[in-house]
Amino acid sequence: MIYLDNAATTKPSKPAITALMRSFKVCGNPSSLHQMGIDAEKELAHARKAIAGIIGAKPAEAIFTSSGTEANNLALFGTAKKHKGKQIITTKHEHSSILKPLEKLAEKDNFNIYYLNTINGKIDLDDLQNALAEPTCIVTTHHINNETGIIQDIQAIGHTIKKHSPATLFHIDAAQSFCKMPIDVADSKIDLLTLSAHKIGGLKGSGALFVKSGVNIQPIILGGGQENNLRSGTENLGGIMAFAAASTYCWQNYKTNFEYIKSLNDRFRGLLGVVDDITFSGADTSPYILDMDIAGVRSEVLLNALSAKDVFVSSGAACSSNKKGANAHRAETALRVSFGVDNTLEEIDAAIHIFAECIKALRKSARIVR
Amino acid sequence: MIYLDNAATTKPSKPAITALMRSFKVCGNPSSLHQMGIDAEKELAHARKAIAGIIGAKPAEAIFTSSGTEANNLALFGTAKKHKGKQIITTKHEHSSILKPLEKLAEKDNFNIYYLNTINGKIDLDDLQNALAEPTCIVTTHHINNETGIIQDIQAIGHTIKKHSPATLFHIDAAQSFCKMPIDVADSKIDLLTLSAHKIGGLKGSGALFVKSGVNIQPIILGGGQENNLRSGTENLGGIMAFAAASTYCWQNYKTNFEYIKSLNDRFRGLLGVVDDITFSGADTSPYILDMDIAGVRSEVLLNALSAKDVFVSSGAACSSNKKGANAHRAETALRVSFGVDNTLEEIDAAIHIFAECIKALRKSARIVR
Repeated sequence: MIYLDNAATTKPSKPAITALMRSFKVCGNPSSLHQMGIDAEKELAHARKAIAGIIGAKPAEAIFTSSGTEANNLALFGTAKKHKGKQIITTKHEHSSILKPLEKLAEKDNFNIYYLNTINGKIDLDDLQNALAEPTCIVTTHHINNETGIIQDIQAIGHTIKKHSPATLFHIDAAQSFCKMPIDVADSKIDLLTLSAHKIGGLKGSGALFVKSGVNIQPIILGGGQENNLRSGTENLGGIMAFAAASTYCWQNYKTNFEYIKSLNDRFRGLLGVVDDITFSGADTSPYILDMDIAGVRSEVLLNALSAKDVFVSSGAACSSNKKGANAHRAETALRVSFGVDNTLEEIDAAIHIFAECIKALRKSARIVR
Repeated sequence: MIYLDNAATTKPSKPAITALMRSFKVCGNPSSLHQMGIDAEKELAHARKAIAGIIGAKPAEAIFTSSGTEANNLALFGTAKKHKGKQIITTKHEHSSILKPLEKLAEKDNFNIYYLNTINGKIDLDDLQNALAEPTCIVTTHHINNETGIIQDIQAIGHTIKKHSPATLFHIDAAQSFCKMPIDVADSKIDLLTLSAHKIGGLKGSGALFVKSGVNIQPIILGGGQENNLRSGTENLGGIMAFAAASTYCWQNYKTNFEYIKSLNDRFRGLLGVVDDITFSGADTSPYILDMDIAGVRSEVLLNALSAKDVFVSSGAACSSNKKGANAHRAETALRVSFGVDNTLEEIDAAIHIFAECIKALRKSARIVR
């Protein structure tokens, strides 16, 4: 099995599993007042500190959630109505957990959603500056695009926002970039930042939202008042401890990982480049995500053919609804390969062989995309 | 260490940990279209079927959430505005994850919250019937009270509701009863039912909401459309598989467990009964939860004294805000002991010894509750 869908989810890393196992010995409820509760609360505090530290935040600014999706929902639903301005600025290239909440805010609460121009997928800063002339409560976008790997210049975006509209909140979905490249919330003037555990060797069911201290935010899940009253429900202690361990491990090795992943990506591009009519994603993309367009081969068909040979990739369009209109044709031939530190060069070589074979066979069978 | 706080959270059971470990081999994203995604999706379906079966529901009626708290929030926020009637009926004895959402619905959306009379903690059915004369969108209450162990007659409540106001939704928080006593959603005419994994040997971070098919409910977390579009975010596969395993194991043994827990409870009452001025919770309570009132000893002080001797219990008032007014004094001397299948008779004997010692010492030091 060759798993090249690491942007969808990763295998849990060893440190994550070790931390999870340790959590079963600290099995109190962090809200309990006795020693076992206190011990559990200490583990939470430790995890909070570890994760906040990686993005230059204070521990109290990290709110644990059940996913990046929940963190995105909390960031948007929790702040929009509390801040001035009926405009929210974003792009059409966001994850559905950004786009859907924005659609709801537009429908139910009359927010105007402004979709920025992008140039090769990157936000047009002039358009951003112009858009900020309207009173805007939030600008929300991604750091690394989950389908294309395109990296937004979050520092430039943050500085543009705060220069032209200091009160506008800046939210970044960093699900694909956390622990893969540096993020400093102060440097980039970020108010809200979404993290996800299972993209970096943590477990599904764990995420976090950084909320800059002083930002007015309301919870979307109410109850016992956990997470500084911003996210009720007994904390997912095992998931959180695993998240912290996975983050620490990933971040400690991020430079080595980056170079290694780049070598896998380069090799993949180089070897598959000999097959005709494949367009790869361009510059300013993360090496973790390789987006390609394979002319004459429908991505879902190729994905299935590859899956039958135990090579697992994504069609990119699977879990997104933002591939409409002009991009519809492109989406049908788009394929996403995403690398992880567990992938080996041998796997890449074997995968390329299978890729070339499948593409050749599918093109031959002349099932050209409509 | 003697852990008698199983209503707060339990240690994961062996079947839960085994299922969790197995989940790391099925580590695809259930939304992925390749074989690893399909395998993950199959595990989800299997878990859904197992859990739904225990309450007499169809698999498609079980929505996985991150906690009982989230399930309660989804049940209330997801339905109130979609159903006729500006009244919501509940009691003052609910968990904060019921009371807080109701407060918000009252504040923001002008719902009237009617708090039912209770007789020894049990809902007064005449009062319920009278209250239903007002157009009511939801009746929401608990099955087993998390602090007192009092069991509501959910069948009688359900029949009263559907007889007098068929369109009113009936929501039950079954966090403390699931797999500990039978629940049949059809028999009790339940529309929405909240479950929690970590009360029955599952993991923190996992819960579910049963939603009767046909009930109009809107998600509170939006995005990729997971869970039949009712709860977006990559599913917590490990937590869900562990939840199903823990439920199956617990439910298979529920009668034996019930008798065993009852024997622990009886022994505890019997032995501690020799200490003066202790009032235990009365009839119609679950043996899993033993609520007691220890005259002249402040529960928090006793809790800490017990904790120092490695006996872990709850003050009952720790994570609740509904102990105001008439119950305030009572709350200060209330203590909750909650049993689990891992507890032994030897532990009970040892705990009683420590209890008696601590109570004696605290009464002697004459720190009478104000």
